[in-house]
Amino acid sequence: MARSVQTHRLAVTAGLALLAAACAPAAPPASAGDGPPNIVIITADDLGYGDLGSYGHPNIRTPHLDRMAEEGLRWTSFYAQAPVCSPSRAALLTGRVHLRSGMFGRRTAVFFPDSRAGLPAEEITLAEALGDLDYATGIIGKWHLGHLPEYLPTRHGFDYWFGIPYSNDMDWNLPDGLENRTAYFEPEIDYWHVPLMRNEAELERPADQTILTRRSTEEAVAFIEDHRDEPFFLYMPHSMPHMPLFVSDQFRGRSTAGIYGDVIEEIDWSVGQVIAALERAGLSENTLVVFTSDNGPWLSYRTHAGTSGLLRDGKGTTFEGGMRVPGLFWWPGTLEPGVTQEIGSAMDLFTTVIALVGGSVPADRPIDGVDLSPVLFGTGPGPRETMAYYRMGELYAFRRGRYKVHFVTEGRYGLPPPRTDHDPPLLYDLDEDPAERYDLAAERPEALAVVVAAAERHRADMTMGEPLFDSRGEQ
Amino acid sequence: MARSVQTHRLAVTAGLALLAAACAPAAPPASAGDGPPNIVIITADDLGYGDLGSYGHPNIRTPHLDRMAEEGLRWTSFYAQAPVCSPSRAALLTGRVHLRSGMFGRRTAVFFPDSRAGLPAEEITLAEALGDLDYATGIIGKWHLGHLPEYLPTRHGFDYWFGIPYSNDMDWNLPDGLENRTAYFEPEIDYWHVPLMRNEAELERPADQTILTRRSTEEAVAFIEDHRDEPFFLYMPHSMPHMPLFVSDQFRGRSTAGIYGDVIEEIDWSVGQVIAALERAGLSENTLVVFTSDNGPWLSYRTHAGTSGLLRDGKGTTFEGGMRVPGLFWWPGTLEPGVTQEIGSAMDLFTTVIALVGGSVPADRPIDGVDLSPVLFGTGPGPRETMAYYRMGELYAFRRGRYKVHFVTEGRYGLPPPRTDHDPPLLYDLDEDPAERYDLAAERPEALAVVVAAAERHRADMTMGEPLFDSRGEQ
Repeated sequence: MARSVQTHRLAVTAGLALLAAACAPAAPPASAGDGPPNIVIITADDLGYGDLGSYGHPNIRTPHLDRMAEEGLRWTSFYAQAPVCSPSRAALLTGRVHLRSGMFGRRTAVFFPDSRAGLPAEEITLAEALGDLDYATGIIGKWHLGHLPEYLPTRHGFDYWFGIPYSNDMDWNLPDGLENRTAYFEPEIDYWHVPLMRNEAELERPADQTILTRRSTEEAVAFIEDHRDEPFFLYMPHSMPHMPLFVSDQFRGRSTAGIYGDVIEEIDWSVGQVIAALERAGLSENTLVVFTSDNGPWLSYRTHAGTSGLLRDGKGTTFEGGMRVPGLFWWPGTLEPGVTQEIGSAMDLFTTVIALVGGSVPADRPIDGVDLSPVLFGTGPGPRETMAYYRMGELYAFRRGRYKVHFVTEGRYGLPPPRTDHDPPLLYDLDEDPAERYDLAAERPEALAVVVAAAERHRADMTMGEPLFDSRGEQ
Repeated sequence: MARSVQTHRLAVTAGLALLAAACAPAAPPASAGDGPPNIVIITADDLGYGDLGSYGHPNIRTPHLDRMAEEGLRWTSFYAQAPVCSPSRAALLTGRVHLRSGMFGRRTAVFFPDSRAGLPAEEITLAEALGDLDYATGIIGKWHLGHLPEYLPTRHGFDYWFGIPYSNDMDWNLPDGLENRTAYFEPEIDYWHVPLMRNEAELERPADQTILTRRSTEEAVAFIEDHRDEPFFLYMPHSMPHMPLFVSDQFRGRSTAGIYGDVIEEIDWSVGQVIAALERAGLSENTLVVFTSDNGPWLSYRTHAGTSGLLRDGKGTTFEGGMRVPGLFWWPGTLEPGVTQEIGSAMDLFTTVIALVGGSVPADRPIDGVDLSPVLFGTGPGPRETMAYYRMGELYAFRRGRYKVHFVTEGRYGLPPPRTDHDPPLLYDLDEDPAERYDLAAERPEALAVVVAAAERHRADMTMGEPLFDSRGEQ
């Protein structure tokens, strides 16, 4: 049954061609639209692989995202680059594994309100790269790469920012006797003290999170309208459905999947508003819209959590449910509708976008993102063969082609399984066993050796910055 | 958070309307096509809720079934009427809970080659009902409602039969020393002794199962072409992906999901051939095509088994994974494209189809199937409020609206959980918790009481035949 990765890729490409057989070949990006394409990257926070209609959820309704799936390219092996917030976002914006920029910790998984560090100034974000090419750049949403002034989005290439600096549950302000975990299920605005920022100024504190998705959507629509006559990059990292869940009155109780469903359906509505704004402005055929999530579902919160579908586990872990997420690419008239099983990473958006707009990635540092254009335009096999799964700066697992090895497995927050080091590593066949149930290390030693060797090459190549998440509090 | 079932239904209907907002209202069936519509019901065997692209599988490619989903009505709460073969098929064909027709056992779950019984002659099948209305009727596939001559499909209203009489793994013929379970993973044709039938004659024995999907497809296409000038009912119960898995050379190794994926992709190809035949014959706008499965995935066989996606457990159990299955209704020009969360059962096909063709269901016996037309045509709320989950003739669980109670839980074949009787019953909210993780019996006693009362009414109304599956061997 074993096949080479090359064969796998060809089979997948053939499948994509099959699905798209009725369509004319896609135009290469150089011939699409007027001038350089606009870029819109929308992310949800802690949304799981199985949370959208097009990814199999039985009763969360996501018609606008499903439209993106039907009209665009839907990825079934698309990954956040880390299983938690800050490192995942750093990789998306820099095209680099988060270790290189120090976006990890040995004791702390993400930035907190007492963090003293942020994304280093010498990192080059996608906003900076596109700004150098005369793009207008905006971030509408959650930053989480350092809240001190010198680390804010406006210092990292974004012309405009509306949103919150870190996760919506940080910096709490609970009444006496109310437990943090209890409060997570009773989302009163005043319990959380997160500020709402515009550029470098605090607009309000605490942010009224019940209307944040709606206000962010209005901000995004205005950004599109304001920049309709110039190329723009809009990065829209929603702060939902991270716990505690907030939703506007218009969507509260509207879904049949509880408040979690309400929140996702409001995000879906928001995506529909962004697409409608692009269409009204006549820009839909010259804009690439990408939707993904920063990591898998935060399973600690019962029905206030999402689902990774058939995948194993969720946020924080290096099982598939922790990092494999929805990946939708929509660009009518340019991208063929279809489904791809090629491997992609949010980190690849950096390289792919810069290639699409005719720029060059920085040559003075390692860039880990690859150009996904061959998959987007059906011009060749997928360029990404591997995926590295890190937790707290440690390589827990590694995928090459269909196979994934686990050097270490661990559940989230004391949930099973406990931390276990594996020697030999576990070996899963993600093609036949996407749920990671059956260890094949003993049965397929040759496959194991190939993936372990690839992981060793990755490890040898990995430069690491100082672990900046550990810099906290008074110092 | 509690809402009435009525509100739930209205919310779902609104959601469907939202998805279909861009489409013209569907014509009622009376105005569609020329004369009474043709009916094609295709079932797979042990295919799980999560096994199709449109239901979220990451790497089984089902473009033809996904086309049915996009152009037709996709159900996310569609149920087989039983978690195993024979009773599920009996209910589909008779519109009655399988207990009424004696299609259950206290010691035996399905019919076997030594069974002495079959579907009783006095049962009225959909084939008989449609035959009375001058439909040509054919079954291309697995029967499994009695293999003795007096119980064959040709004695139950079908003009034509091509297929096997019971499951493909029954009646084995293994070499000395080869275990049944081992042989399941080494599908040599000669290991299984199942006959291939045409009407009441044996065509070959053992059936060459490697080419059975292809030959069945050719038979189905010929049936459609032969009957293009008269109304017809084609029932196509594939014998795959029941273990052991067989696939033609054309599809072996073609998928990236192992032999299980190969088998599903061949079934998908077959569905595409049937639809193409309808289109060639100019019949696609006057034919209702339904695709579903007879029960959930047979999880005992590692990567030779399917997946129920985010649902709990699989075949044989009364968790959702045992009975909730894909449900696709396709009828271009008549059915609005969309997704519905309404509850439906394969048992409802009997009543729905008879209503569609202008007939009447038998008045001399209880009929449990309801007419799903209001959901199909968007003319009203879903008519099905409840679902009963039986195992070995015993009511293990019951759903009413969003809530499901479990009186008994049990895993399959000695797998966990062991049989456990629950008093009070477990209560799950399938809307917020489709994976059946969080028992709410203590938190929501009123909901529990409502569902238990509905289950008691169902129990009081349930007439039961003799348990005919227990009639086996020399007697």
